[in-house]
Amino acid sequence: MFSGLSAFPLTPMNESGIDEAAFARLIDRLVAAGVDSIGALGSTGSYAYLNRAEREQVTQLAVAQAGKVPVIVGIGALRTRDVLDAAEDAQKAGASGVLLAPMSYQKLSEDEVFGLFDSVTRHLSVPLCVYDNPTTTHFEFSDELHGRIAQLPNVRSIKIPGVPVEPEAAKARVDRLRALIPSHVTIGVSGDVLAATGLNAGCDAWYSVIGGLFPRTALAITRAAQSGDVHQAMRLSERLQPLWELFGQYGGSLRVMAAAAELQGLTESPCLPLPLKALDGPGKQKLATLLEALELT
Amino acid sequence: MFSGLSAFPLTPMNESGIDEAAFARLIDRLVAAGVDSIGALGSTGSYAYLNRAEREQVTQLAVAQAGKVPVIVGIGALRTRDVLDAAEDAQKAGASGVLLAPMSYQKLSEDEVFGLFDSVTRHLSVPLCVYDNPTTTHFEFSDELHGRIAQLPNVRSIKIPGVPVEPEAAKARVDRLRALIPSHVTIGVSGDVLAATGLNAGCDAWYSVIGGLFPRTALAITRAAQSGDVHQAMRLSERLQPLWELFGQYGGSLRVMAAAAELQGLTESPCLPLPLKALDGPGKQKLATLLEALELT
Repeated sequence: MFSGLSAFPLTPMNESGIDEAAFARLIDRLVAAGVDSIGALGSTGSYAYLNRAEREQVTQLAVAQAGKVPVIVGIGALRTRDVLDAAEDAQKAGASGVLLAPMSYQKLSEDEVFGLFDSVTRHLSVPLCVYDNPTTTHFEFSDELHGRIAQLPNVRSIKIPGVPVEPEAAKARVDRLRALIPSHVTIGVSGDVLAATGLNAGCDAWYSVIGGLFPRTALAITRAAQSGDVHQAMRLSERLQPLWELFGQYGGSLRVMAAAAELQGLTESPCLPLPLKALDGPGKQKLATLLEALELT
Repeated sequence: MFSGLSAFPLTPMNESGIDEAAFARLIDRLVAAGVDSIGALGSTGSYAYLNRAEREQVTQLAVAQAGKVPVIVGIGALRTRDVLDAAEDAQKAGASGVLLAPMSYQKLSEDEVFGLFDSVTRHLSVPLCVYDNPTTTHFEFSDELHGRIAQLPNVRSIKIPGVPVEPEAAKARVDRLRALIPSHVTIGVSGDVLAATGLNAGCDAWYSVIGGLFPRTALAITRAAQSGDVHQAMRLSERLQPLWELFGQYGGSLRVMAAAAELQGLTESPCLPLPLKALDGPGKQKLATLLEALELT
């Protein structure tokens, strides 16, 4: 479950609730494309903006729709109590694994983050992926802390935020982390721009945003890297350079992917929870042109 | 309400719930000392970690206990929908004003933050204070955005995160913001270390963390500055230098003030929501010595 392509779909919603039909459509695309796992309620799935009942609803839908494809469910929350509740709900709803980011309002210390993972992993009966995403959590994991957390029961993967651009530096970074964690814990790259570099550098998985909407495109990159064709993986990724540039320009991937889903008729508009707004105006126009040119699927 | 000393108490709690008796004790101290307003459910009151029912519970307690002292209630949440609910709940429970920080998981744009304040201020019947706290929200207000938001209905104050250390630079900073906002909107300083400098520079209010636990100490600084005795205000603040250093050393004021409340027997230990942990071990020992030496009240 924590290797290959893990595709992270949007959770289409508006101020009245979850758009179940649109979410089911997104999951269907992932299953049809043959992704290795589905990451429901990741950052792209706006987990942080949903209440407990909504998170249960989304998990149940994802599990029902995914069939045999394992579903990993995001259980992050600001408070340990709420993470424990989310973990219990996810397991009851049939999640195959869970994903936990140390969300913060008050900046967290290493000791506090270790305490969170220690509490949560004690209460799990499914495997957990440590979600290292400083852009949203404002917490920087040290490799030493990753090493300590990776020893906890049920920890099976680490989702790292990216790797250095240079292939050798990327490999050194992955090797350094690998040396600090048990062999049963995989390393997955996120930050789609660096995914091919990360996979080529030895990451076991790609926790992918574009995979949630364009699974065939993401699978082509993943399968090339997995078969050892590093050049083909890089070529396929570099072809998407204009998309990576839009991510950089519009504060990350979420608002761009939401607009892409709207443009493809896969979701209504709006599909993000306010105050978030999908890419609009000239940016959306540029994205439309780009989606056509790149033939993303 | 948005001038003088606004004291922000802790919300003492543990994993089972709110410690109502301890919270009532904290409010009693503020009323007895004669603070100008009480800021319930600020960052120090851990609003971000509480659910809707708990926030209602804390608001009701604060209002009941505060008597004639106006209570300002924090209504921030990641999602606009939840902010609107919190605003409604706070008003129903008798809050005299509300305080809104643009909490984030996905980093917010200026347009998204303006949209949030626009939506919320339309639905208010009590005045609002804009809460500018980049340390916890990871959003940097431009002065131009402050100017636009300050024009919205019901906006009556801006809580700024601090001022430059140099008195002239501090005054220039306050004057620059003042020139961009209507005269009915006050400016309050937070970041206790710079409170005396901010008040001396012309801030109308001090939104105070130490005021929530040591109201007499904070009032002495406030009243000195209000009476124009800039040197006395600075002297009283500089006397607290060892406390300011502890704030710097332990990632902000919250964990230190929680430990101080525990040491004074005002709350049980723990009194913060996990994963947060109050200052402990040698740091707490140091704080105990310091509290005695500084005779904080």
